[in-house]
Amino acid sequence: MPKMKAIQKPGPREGAQIVEAEVPTPGPHDLLIRVRATSVCGTDLHIYKWDAWAKSRLKPPLIFGHECCGEVVQVGASVRGFALGDYVSAESHIPCGYCFQCRTGLQHICSNLSILGVDVNGCFADYVTIPATCAWKNDPSLPVEIGSILEPMGNAVYATLIEDVSGRSVAVFGCGPTGLFSAGIAKASGASVVIAIDLNPGRMELARKMGADEVIAGNDPELADKVARLTGDLGVDVVLEMSGAAPAIRAGFKILKKGGRFTAFGLPTQPVELDFANDVIFKGARVFGINGREMFTTWYKMIGLLKSGRFKPDPVITHKFRLEDFEKAFAAMQSTETTCGKVVLLP
Amino acid sequence: MPKMKAIQKPGPREGAQIVEAEVPTPGPHDLLIRVRATSVCGTDLHIYKWDAWAKSRLKPPLIFGHECCGEVVQVGASVRGFALGDYVSAESHIPCGYCFQCRTGLQHICSNLSILGVDVNGCFADYVTIPATCAWKNDPSLPVEIGSILEPMGNAVYATLIEDVSGRSVAVFGCGPTGLFSAGIAKASGASVVIAIDLNPGRMELARKMGADEVIAGNDPELADKVARLTGDLGVDVVLEMSGAAPAIRAGFKILKKGGRFTAFGLPTQPVELDFANDVIFKGARVFGINGREMFTTWYKMIGLLKSGRFKPDPVITHKFRLEDFEKAFAAMQSTETTCGKVVLLP
Amino acid sequence: MPKMKAIQKPGPREGAQIVEAEVPTPGPHDLLIRVRATSVCGTDLHIYKWDAWAKSRLKPPLIFGHECCGEVVQVGASVRGFALGDYVSAESHIPCGYCFQCRTGLQHICSNLSILGVDVNGCFADYVTIPATCAWKNDPSLPVEIGSILEPMGNAVYATLIEDVSGRSVAVFGCGPTGLFSAGIAKASGASVVIAIDLNPGRMELARKMGADEVIAGNDPELADKVARLTGDLGVDVVLEMSGAAPAIRAGFKILKKGGRFTAFGLPTQPVELDFANDVIFKGARVFGINGREMFTTWYKMIGLLKSGRFKPDPVITHKFRLEDFEKAFAAMQSTETTCGKVVLLP
Amino acid sequence: MPKMKAIQKPGPREGAQIVEAEVPTPGPHDLLIRVRATSVCGTDLHIYKWDAWAKSRLKPPLIFGHECCGEVVQVGASVRGFALGDYVSAESHIPCGYCFQCRTGLQHICSNLSILGVDVNGCFADYVTIPATCAWKNDPSLPVEIGSILEPMGNAVYATLIEDVSGRSVAVFGCGPTGLFSAGIAKASGASVVIAIDLNPGRMELARKMGADEVIAGNDPELADKVARLTGDLGVDVVLEMSGAAPAIRAGFKILKKGGRFTAFGLPTQPVELDFANDVIFKGARVFGINGREMFTTWYKMIGLLKSGRFKPDPVITHKFRLEDFEKAFAAMQSTETTCGKVVLLP
Repeated sequence: MPKMKAIQKPGPREGAQIVEAEVPTPGPHDLLIRVRATSVCGTDLHIYKWDAWAKSRLKPPLIFGHECCGEVVQVGASVRGFALGDYVSAESHIPCGYCFQCRTGLQHICSNLSILGVDVNGCFADYVTIPATCAWKNDPSLPVEIGSILEPMGNAVYATLIEDVSGRSVAVFGCGPTGLFSAGIAKASGASVVIAIDLNPGRMELARKMGADEVIAGNDPELADKVARLTGDLGVDVVLEMSGAAPAIRAGFKILKKGGRFTAFGLPTQPVELDFANDVIFKGARVFGINGREMFTTWYKMIGLLKSGRFKPDPVITHKFRLEDFEKAFAAMQSTETTCGKVVLLP
Repeated sequence: MPKMKAIQKPGPREGAQIVEAEVPTPGPHDLLIRVRATSVCGTDLHIYKWDAWAKSRLKPPLIFGHECCGEVVQVGASVRGFALGDYVSAESHIPCGYCFQCRTGLQHICSNLSILGVDVNGCFADYVTIPATCAWKNDPSLPVEIGSILEPMGNAVYATLIEDVSGRSVAVFGCGPTGLFSAGIAKASGASVVIAIDLNPGRMELARKMGADEVIAGNDPELADKVARLTGDLGVDVVLEMSGAAPAIRAGFKILKKGGRFTAFGLPTQPVELDFANDVIFKGARVFGINGREMFTTWYKMIGLLKSGRFKPDPVITHKFRLEDFEKAFAAMQSTETTCGKVVLLP
Repeated sequence: MPKMKAIQKPGPREGAQIVEAEVPTPGPHDLLIRVRATSVCGTDLHIYKWDAWAKSRLKPPLIFGHECCGEVVQVGASVRGFALGDYVSAESHIPCGYCFQCRTGLQHICSNLSILGVDVNGCFADYVTIPATCAWKNDPSLPVEIGSILEPMGNAVYATLIEDVSGRSVAVFGCGPTGLFSAGIAKASGASVVIAIDLNPGRMELARKMGADEVIAGNDPELADKVARLTGDLGVDVVLEMSGAAPAIRAGFKILKKGGRFTAFGLPTQPVELDFANDVIFKGARVFGINGREMFTTWYKMIGLLKSGRFKPDPVITHKFRLEDFEKAFAAMQSTETTCGKVVLLP
Repeated sequence: MPKMKAIQKPGPREGAQIVEAEVPTPGPHDLLIRVRATSVCGTDLHIYKWDAWAKSRLKPPLIFGHECCGEVVQVGASVRGFALGDYVSAESHIPCGYCFQCRTGLQHICSNLSILGVDVNGCFADYVTIPATCAWKNDPSLPVEIGSILEPMGNAVYATLIEDVSGRSVAVFGCGPTGLFSAGIAKASGASVVIAIDLNPGRMELARKMGADEVIAGNDPELADKVARLTGDLGVDVVLEMSGAAPAIRAGFKILKKGGRFTAFGLPTQPVELDFANDVIFKGARVFGINGREMFTTWYKMIGLLKSGRFKPDPVITHKFRLEDFEKAFAAMQSTETTCGKVVLLP
């Protein structure tokens, strides 16, 4: 049995370890992927730190990680449309294929959803198996660093473009990787003005690099006034809430134009108190909850945006390490001294 | 100066009185309407009772009332498209005509909105003036009782049909007049099953008359289970929240299908605590805040629905009084003994 | 090897014959269905008569037929979501599963589409195999006659409801089965007025039974005037073109309201000359080409409509025969003496 | 009575003349505009040359011209929202305000539409009156050349963005001014690849300047093959037909992806023969006819695009003349030697 290195959550406690594991065997519908690059999600940090959510969901031992790209080295007997040597990225949402959502174009919120690296072994390893229905074929020219971040970038594409932004003003709350991608995507799609809001000066600078026209501190008491000045006192057409912070959610609704669109992506950990009458009803708001990416409408749109030449995700990748240096990745993500965007691990 | 009778809020206190007032003079853009029928809104009861909202908004003395129909008896010099003798209903939202919302099809949420019978004298009177831009021409065959309730019925048409309901399951929370209309509109538009939820047995019975397939008490501990059984454990495709009660809003999100639509119309009087992560984001929900009616896309759709023969609003009208008996109307609306839908007053 | 009876196109010539064939063996992704009812499509008549299209597309010998329902009697090893004894209907469009269209919710117009009973053996037989991805599970209470016509009914659901019809006026050109279904679906979905247009008096009568409010002969020189009277001189909001006749297509555009919707489903056999400037551009028309049904958004909507109780497809089924009497089916479909809607064959 | 210079069509024959006319008096709903810049439309050339369309529509004498911007120098008594000194551009579609289309957000295709400079005196003059409902207020920083071309640019904005183009491939047929604007708008809105098609080398070069990634001659026998190579053999997501040439319309449908969008803006002068079955129905195409611009949703979007900094319309303006040199403008537009985009006239 061939062996490989992998980052494993060994048991119900904080931390992770590098192990020698068996190379997985793909089922008839699966692909075996030799991982070329994998990137680290906030979810992986939750798993590493073993927070309340991780405790309630994971059953260790588990190889985690769910954002990756690599080469197809084995093809399940029933698979059509993929071949040995294909360069693919992984969609981490594994749908059942037969529920209502799966049969109506909503596989990403499948009623029986399992998640790569959360419910089944993931991609912090030399090899990973994924169902062919979760594989996305890349052009060989795509750098593997970019190939590994398509999954989280897809969140931003779906969240930003669920309605057209051309010629519209957009406020992005939260300049983590998804917010940073969103700023770039909105600008590349013709947004009139992109306003990025965060508390971290390093991230605010990254937002500018990604194309934000204006950057405002989330605790700036003049936030609302500044947005009013930038929007002719109308408020923004579109709010992209990527932070999950209750005050940001509330501030987002306050600066939203009457008849505007609010996209909710960032996950609050507690219930949120909203001025539902004024912020949603009187405002005539449209609120869209986003989890995951459309399979694969979003992916096609994303590749098209990269191809357009107007959207460059590179600045979001702030760190690269070897896979075995995964502790450095988690340290960077928790550092208060450096600015951390996306961290890529190379097996 | 010709005189007329009118129901007036004389000053900053509870109650109302019938007065002899001057017949208003229409401006160049206005129509003078001889009121044939007027109906009473929950808002009028707030005004009558002089609640916190009324105190903060109204400047008495004021003739109130904003739902009505009648005959055009005078046409302002600049008006085109209306003539003496036209039978019209009033749209109560008076838009400025030149703000962003007014110029992009969102007049009903105009940035400078004023409301008939709230910000300017209204229609609890023999005569009322309205801008021609707020007049809707009816077919002479439409009964005046129906003509007087088009405005509130329009709320239900807009809220229910903001997305297609054909073949979809619909839950209506709150069986006041708007909820009752919505149940009928959803059923007439091909909803697979309409589930009406309320606490009042009389209103629940009215909901059945309007076409609800199932009626469930809002405090039924098995509400969620019953909805699950009716929807193959998927939840409803569409929630229409017409009650404004925080528990109903939360229950509505809980029974909503993943990928479903939540329309928020009922106005909560306090902030509402929501499980934003599970109910909006993970659910992939679309939430639409509704205030008023599209001018006049909604009105055309509404008349089309009445013309279809599949939607009969009549059961919602439970009481009719003469205008001078307005005290009976407010008593009926507050009665705990009788079931009150829509109350029509005839001058 | 077990045997079964089947209706076969034996070679490149007119006609068909009943044969004893081997019961097919399902592959790992397939279901074997014992056919309970099958219905006959216009396409089957083209195959029977061996017209130009059939000559160019089919490779006999072939068991034809593609509309059916039945019982699952064998389940391929890789299939999930279906079990022995399930009562299913067949979707006739067999998608590849990996092309652009298949991965963006457009499987019904897959780039590598094959069709049941056209490109592979079909369901005019005791048994048929279909990919599980083309199976739709029915409630046991659904009559098999209805189960067999879901596929063509789905065309009508998709074509009619590609945009909302609630409160809108609808003209249906062509009262063959799809047009008849469409009239009923539009009415059940709240259409203000449904105008059915055909040349055949029997079909026009069926259209009334299905819910058409007005029926007009396609060659009535006053067609346009009548539609004008029914629509306040505006034209209809929606044209459903189900005939494929060039004069009907042109008439449809002429009676379409400015800003209206034209759905094209009926297939013309020749190029069509259109007044593109006036009928499409100046009119601000939206034209939707429809082929097949959304997999399976349309199917869910269809079942919801049946469940609503407002749409009854039964009158469209005008003939039932035993499978071996298939010659009677083709005779009925070509008869000029009787009115033929949908013909169901029972094995 | 104050006088002004104006370009007039004096009678039913070819040509135009400069005249001294009375400065028009604005009605109560109108604005009097001192024209700062006006641009010339293909329609003006039709009027100048007195072609069949002009003969059938115009009633000379008439001051023509309908694209302009300028300063408000008089405000009608009933006008709200505009003031002396405002810098405005003119919307040329003058809606009635009370028909179905006007009351449902489709004023630009009003049932009783009249056109500035076609049905009423236009803006090839020192002064022009327009209804305030047709005025669009500009920021003082907008150059008057750009202010004068907003109306035709709006056609391109509406046509291009009637559905989202972010990440999609777009083919533009016809590189006259509207096609050139469209190429730039599509690229600024994130189109993956913009393919411009024309016969004129000068225009093809302008298309590149506007942002087209690929330029193909309309008579290139390899057109379809080239598009196939650029789109992975799928065809383009979006066709923008701006030429009105029947062969271009047909070629556009042929290179359209299954499930794609075809926007029809260019006006054919004759009926067009289409392969309706293959190009519209089997293809599952969405076809949108475009005439004019949404009032004023399109205008807001357009200003937002200009503000984005990603869309620069300047290269489309190839000529500027003084108003009295209008003959040079018409000569340039008909020249086979020079490349003519938009011609601006300065009074």
